[in-house]
Amino acid sequence: MLDIFHNEPEIRTFAPGEFLFRQGEDPVHHMFAILDGEVQIDRDGRVLADLKPTDLVGEMALIDAQPRSASAKALTAVRAAVVTEKRFLFLVQQHPSFSLAMLRMLTQRLRANLES
Amino acid sequence: MLDIFHNEPEIRTFAPGEFLFRQGEDPVHHMFAILDGEVQIDRDGRVLADLKPTDLVGEMALIDAQPRSASAKALTAVRAAVVTEKRFLFLVQQHPSFSLAMLRMLTQRLRANLES
Repeated sequence: MLDIFHNEPEIRTFAPGEFLFRQGEDPVHHMFAILDGEVQIDRDGRVLADLKPTDLVGEMALIDAQPRSASAKALTAVRAAVVTEKRFLFLVQQHPSFSLAMLRMLTQRLRANLES
Repeated sequence: MLDIFHNEPEIRTFAPGEFLFRQGEDPVHHMFAILDGEVQIDRDGRVLADLKPTDLVGEMALIDAQPRSASAKALTAVRAAVVTEKRFLFLVQQHPSFSLAMLRMLTQRLRANLES
């Protein structure tokens, strides 16, 4: 998606097979931006998407504060930047291109989901 | 969604049973904001949503310029404001609350679709 998250203060690493989060978990006030590696999104055992560097992960629970709609698992070694709610709101307010990119990403996911 | 579209320059009316647009049609460079009435969203004969005043209709094709993913039919007499791409981009740039509301709306639709 957007290549603007390389300087976030908090970076997390995940080993292959490790979960970034699991379906049904309570939301936390951050999402992830993938810096390196691949992440698989899975709901009820069905693969919804394979995500790669610059993709965002976990944005739905950040936006609507509902429990995780799907699980996110590292397929490879993954490095991901933590994007807090405060940082997200700052980006929406200061960077319309970020809002547009997120709107496009959600639209693509909605369309892919409708067509699957 | 947002109650900011009562002063748009172009308002269209639809009779009960009339389509605002049909699944598969090429995108046009506007979406609708419902001012009065109810609109049913239908894909492949399956009802996806019933929308009401202040809801937006047709935002996906505006955002990603792909053909209509679903049909939108007036269930009652409907008045809808035409929101052009130019106006949409202006709102994203000037009104972060509009971007946030759209992000929430798309997230809700994605979640509803995942859970249906």
